Amino acid sequence: MPNLDPIEYEQASPVVQAVYDDIMATRNTDWVNNFWKVLAHHPANLQRIWSNIKQVMANGALDPLTKEMIYVAISITNNCGYCIASHSAGARAKGMTEAQFGELMAVVGLANETNRLAVGYGVPIDEVFKLK
Amino acid sequence: MPNLDPIEYEQASPVVQAVYDDIMATRNTDWVNNFWKVLAHHPANLQRIWSNIKQVMANGALDPLTKEMIYVAISITNNCGYCIASHSAGARAKGMTEAQFGELMAVVGLANETNRLAVGYGVPIDEVFKLK
Amino acid sequence: MPNLDPIEYEQASPVVQAVYDDIMATRNTDWVNNFWKVLAHHPANLQRIWSNIKQVMANGALDPLTKEMIYVAISITNNCGYCIASHSAGARAKGMTEAQFGELMAVVGLANETNRLAVGYGVPIDEVFKLK
Amino acid sequence: MPNLDPIEYEQASPVVQAVYDDIMATRNTDWVNNFWKVLAHHPANLQRIWSNIKQVMANGALDPLTKEMIYVAISITNNCGYCIASHSAGARAKGMTEAQFGELMAVVGLANETNRLAVGYGVPIDEVFKLK
Amino acid sequence: MPNLDPIEYEQASPVVQAVYDDIMATRNTDWVNNFWKVLAHHPANLQRIWSNIKQVMANGALDPLTKEMIYVAISITNNCGYCIASHSAGARAKGMTEAQFGELMAVVGLANETNRLAVGYGVPIDEVFKLK
Amino acid sequence: MPNLDPIEYEQASPVVQAVYDDIMATRNTDWVNNFWKVLAHHPANLQRIWSNIKQVMANGALDPLTKEMIYVAISITNNCGYCIASHSAGARAKGMTEAQFGELMAVVGLANETNRLAVGYGVPIDEVFKLK
Repeated sequence: MPNLDPIEYEQASPVVQAVYDDIMATRNTDWVNNFWKVLAHHPANLQRIWSNIKQVMANGALDPLTKEMIYVAISITNNCGYCIASHSAGARAKGMTEAQFGELMAVVGLANETNRLAVGYGVPIDEVFKLK
Repeated sequence: MPNLDPIEYEQASPVVQAVYDDIMATRNTDWVNNFWKVLAHHPANLQRIWSNIKQVMANGALDPLTKEMIYVAISITNNCGYCIASHSAGARAKGMTEAQFGELMAVVGLANETNRLAVGYGVPIDEVFKLK
Repeated sequence: MPNLDPIEYEQASPVVQAVYDDIMATRNTDWVNNFWKVLAHHPANLQRIWSNIKQVMANGALDPLTKEMIYVAISITNNCGYCIASHSAGARAKGMTEAQFGELMAVVGLANETNRLAVGYGVPIDEVFKLK
Repeated sequence: MPNLDPIEYEQASPVVQAVYDDIMATRNTDWVNNFWKVLAHHPANLQRIWSNIKQVMANGALDPLTKEMIYVAISITNNCGYCIASHSAGARAKGMTEAQFGELMAVVGLANETNRLAVGYGVPIDEVFKLK
Repeated sequence: MPNLDPIEYEQASPVVQAVYDDIMATRNTDWVNNFWKVLAHHPANLQRIWSNIKQVMANGALDPLTKEMIYVAISITNNCGYCIASHSAGARAKGMTEAQFGELMAVVGLANETNRLAVGYGVPIDEVFKLK
Repeated sequence: MPNLDPIEYEQASPVVQAVYDDIMATRNTDWVNNFWKVLAHHPANLQRIWSNIKQVMANGALDPLTKEMIYVAISITNNCGYCIASHSAGARAKGMTEAQFGELMAVVGLANETNRLAVGYGVPIDEVFKLK
């Protein structure tokens, strides 16, 4: 029977350790969260997903805090408890204030409400929006 | 049989016209998009939802562009075509660049992927995240 | 290449015709809507799903209109255009008024909002609710 | 670090206490469930959401029990554990019988099944439904 | 107040026992999992759903392992903890290897990502796909 | 205003053309479907997603047809019209028969039903499943 418990650094293969090392170096931390330690059971998934996260969540046209808040909004909409916990912590570590979190929650709630209203009423797209 | 076509200003009741007027004044525009014109078939819904949107989407601890981008991210996750069209237009009107939209799409896609991975692997929440 | 166009009565096999006949007899109508005509490409699915619908949507502890309105609420939440159209028509045929539809939409929208808030805030279940 | 534990009445600000008072008066109860006590961390959200719930869930064209059952159906579809617990309790308090709950579950399950079938088969909307 | 605890064989009515017997005979096991023991509170649901599962999950044009893996993929996408646990166990019992599970997770994650990208970008369906 | 129309090969930058070339070489075809032509507006997304798809959908512990059918199942559950069209075509090109498609649809529908039932009933996970 498979064991999907988190794989600690000391137990990990060199391939997995190299990803853990890169996670810690990129984030300038001395620990790795459980998401990666569980993905480590399938090193190909671990390497691929970390490579994607590293590229997508880097500073760019959007700042890292904005990206984290978008991540939180989606994680709530998808009802992923782990993701809400980890990305909320990430957003707070990047400077999200309680007032910002309160407004984020308000937008998340209301967007989910109006999304259903637009669908339920079958609102036709305005011509001006079709021009993008 | 009910007709849920958008209700134009000229056809609207005074109660509905008052909401349309407030929408245009708040947004400093001279038109109202179809979402409101369809909700107008049920004036109680129109008034209540507009009142919520006006409060939640106002400038605050989060700026209006950030709020619009969060709205877009949720609308994509919920698959609401009308909402994607209207809030993408809103985000662009508030200054979202194509580079920002590209990165927003990258975060939306990847968050939806890692949300499923965290759920599918049943990743246990790290103790440090429980402290929030 | 497969053709999934609706299968009309005249073109249907006897097995499919028998289901169509039962649908029309049960509903006291002289036509069959496209959902069934498309499922007819896989008669096992057609028979099984119709048998379920016939049993579940019958009058019982809940009346048929209440059941149709619940169906509409779920179809909106799941964003199924066909289902919204067909079950809204069904609810109206069973007596749903425009005022009822307006309130149904209000509940659908608000439930989707508060669902996300409860998840996003990680609200702990009250002890009294655990007693059910 | 933020503390999102439920805020009890005695610890609450006057603004929050006023909402708690209105909740108890409206429901004719002497307690407030955790949903509101957690939202109380952001009083603007607490006030706004309570104001919406009070309006939407009131007796109207639909009776309160029907509204609660629709709420339960959506909460199940959205997979919100807290919401299922609280609104099921609400529905039972308003008179939902076990037989009604059993039929509600049957409709919820089957609607989620046929929603996917309609989407997966790409069923075209019947002309008669377009007339609404 | 209703008790939705699993109903054990000894406590069950003859109608429920007959379904349990058929589950064990069909699966060639000597126990019944909690899903059925909870549905047993509403025997009509128990009988109907078991009848569906027995028919749909049987060997056919698709083998039982492929069907279980599809079930797992959907359960993850819908975030159903019980379903992930039970159908993962089912897939492993039918021979799913850890390498297969790793690839299944990769497909589940990536499909959820590209689903959102296709929706968010509003990709038009290629003519060749419309021919099916 | 942004133009998100598909970018044809002739109009594409060398970076984009290189991805198109790799798509066609990997699939042994002489055309590229619209998903990639729209992602091409953000070459970083195009390159990253294609790299993921190429790795994940390759033959491995699971065969390509099984992977495509899992993709179809998720796309239906997420209600992505483009994805249903493109991956159904992909599955058929890889040998999916109509009988297999019919059974796939049956599993997709039923899994979505039982997922909701397990959530709505709050079924406790059996101890034997916790051992995985």
